[in-house]
Amino acid sequence: MVKTIDWVDGSVIMLDQSKLPLEVIYIECRDHLKVAEGIKKLWIRGAPAIGIAASMAIALAAREIKAVTVEDFRLKLEPAFTTLLETRPTAVNIRWAVDRFRAFIGNHRDSSVERLKELLIEEARRVLAEDIEVNRAIGLWGAQFIKDGDTVLTHCNAGSLATGGYGTATAPMRVAKEQGKKFNVIADETRPVLQGARLTAWELMEDGIPVTLITDNTAGALMQKGEIDLAIVGTDRTVLNGDVANKIGTYSVAVLCKEHSIPFYVAAPLSSIDFTIPSGEFIPIEERDPEEVTHVFGTCRIAPEGVRVRNLAFDVTPARYVTAIITEKGAFRPSDLKELSDPDRDLRGFRIGNGR
Amino acid sequence: MVKTIDWVDGSVIMLDQSKLPLEVIYIECRDHLKVAEGIKKLWIRGAPAIGIAASMAIALAAREIKAVTVEDFRLKLEPAFTTLLETRPTAVNIRWAVDRFRAFIGNHRDSSVERLKELLIEEARRVLAEDIEVNRAIGLWGAQFIKDGDTVLTHCNAGSLATGGYGTATAPMRVAKEQGKKFNVIADETRPVLQGARLTAWELMEDGIPVTLITDNTAGALMQKGEIDLAIVGTDRTVLNGDVANKIGTYSVAVLCKEHSIPFYVAAPLSSIDFTIPSGEFIPIEERDPEEVTHVFGTCRIAPEGVRVRNLAFDVTPARYVTAIITEKGAFRPSDLKELSDPDRDLRGFRIGNGR
Repeated sequence: MVKTIDWVDGSVIMLDQSKLPLEVIYIECRDHLKVAEGIKKLWIRGAPAIGIAASMAIALAAREIKAVTVEDFRLKLEPAFTTLLETRPTAVNIRWAVDRFRAFIGNHRDSSVERLKELLIEEARRVLAEDIEVNRAIGLWGAQFIKDGDTVLTHCNAGSLATGGYGTATAPMRVAKEQGKKFNVIADETRPVLQGARLTAWELMEDGIPVTLITDNTAGALMQKGEIDLAIVGTDRTVLNGDVANKIGTYSVAVLCKEHSIPFYVAAPLSSIDFTIPSGEFIPIEERDPEEVTHVFGTCRIAPEGVRVRNLAFDVTPARYVTAIITEKGAFRPSDLKELSDPDRDLRGFRIGNGR
Repeated sequence: MVKTIDWVDGSVIMLDQSKLPLEVIYIECRDHLKVAEGIKKLWIRGAPAIGIAASMAIALAAREIKAVTVEDFRLKLEPAFTTLLETRPTAVNIRWAVDRFRAFIGNHRDSSVERLKELLIEEARRVLAEDIEVNRAIGLWGAQFIKDGDTVLTHCNAGSLATGGYGTATAPMRVAKEQGKKFNVIADETRPVLQGARLTAWELMEDGIPVTLITDNTAGALMQKGEIDLAIVGTDRTVLNGDVANKIGTYSVAVLCKEHSIPFYVAAPLSSIDFTIPSGEFIPIEERDPEEVTHVFGTCRIAPEGVRVRNLAFDVTPARYVTAIITEKGAFRPSDLKELSDPDRDLRGFRIGNGR
């Protein structure tokens, strides 16, 4: 399976996604500054993958610190936290990693500095392992919806490249393949940034999962011809009532699925569900640089100079279009998602199907 | 108004659309071979525009022929017909033009060769004038659907650039502007060939009609926000029951319009309505070169080497999604379209609204 990032022989090995699919280059990061550069330059993207990179960067930074007491060690590590937080100010997963490692150090005041350095490396590798575990669980709960001979539509890239492994929307596909099922995937190219064409098509080809690339305009016609059996997409943020924010175009896919009675699934790790927001209307939608639309790859101009552009980064798919939301704790109807907000809730009565 | 092609001082002036919107170059064609080159190299595209170009090329070829009798003249003109028919074998409008001019010459056997050469130039200019007349009539019947303050969505380019002037889908917009209405247009970029970004956005900007460019993925989100009031598209071929074949993605726009109760109009000159085909299922859908999807402008690669691609050039929008079909004879419900197949039919009882 494609690995976006890994810890190998005391170094972080990172796939430079900014060059995909034209070049496949793995970069060895021997110190945290190189990892920070990678986050800043988008060698690595996707919320979970960025969290993993930040964690490993912290372990690399810790290794170089000369300190006698843990307290001194902790203080000398602060500049590395700052460096990482400044790479992508809006990336919540960097903040999440820094908080996790600050707390971890706080819980190991009694260990020696040298021992603590080892423990931090173990902890960084645990962050990667936990992410893979979560995604594999999503895959196990989601694979039940992919039948032999199915064709699965996906949009954007919620794949291995955005995570430590398996991906979220792609996890059910990878588990279905492990289970020996034969199926095809259709990847929307996903304008404007083309994550589907550049990343999803590439990583599924790498893993030997049959994938066909289409323009976003083609999904409806293929549904009309009966050539798509289900859709699985990821989510940037899903909220309490089951409304789903995801890459622009996801809502159109959902409407087309409803029109053709095709099930529409959302793969959502619990970390992407915001129970503090009651419904989608309260999700802020970022509008991005018109150049993403007027230029391809930032170089190929495709539109007239000075043309007015609307470039919404995301859209919101109302819960009523969503067949099920697939989490690491099971697949749920959007209306039952709120049950997950209580960690002690017995979920057995709410799960759809099973995860084996 | 943007002119794709015109007859000026004994030459054909042609806008090289293949370079739009990066360069705006008008090419002077002094003989029919230059016009044929333009058709072949896609300097000019769009069925009506190609028919006009072929007609003018015939007039240019005729001018150079040395002959005493009309019969000799007719024979010496045949090689020019062959040259034109070979430029784009599937372009029905070239065949249409050749047939029209063969018949015209047949009807003028008694005139002198020199007089006939003049008449052929007049006939070629009449072809242009008739096309503009048809499109303006579509505009007059269609403008009633555009109200002050409306935002109109369009897909692909059924504009001036595809015709002698006014365009088909854009004709109601241009007439509405002549009527002093204030409205905005949103142009889908229309992957894979980007006619919306390259052509529609450009020609509307040239004519001072406010236009905003979006990715095809964005239309649904804007409808959801209530920012689109109606959609007007063109058609490559509309059939007896009102089913509409048009550029890939048109069907998705129609489904999204239905979901949001937004009227969806099709501008269709009678020449694009095929009364011999009962319904859309019998319309053959061309699948085109994967490179249109994997490369932008044939140069910018955006997808992995060897990826499988589905590239449908057109899709079919069933009549039930179409609010009205706007022709030069009036706007009609798709179910009433068949009335137009009888040229002697009194259409007054079938027209929607009025054309003034």
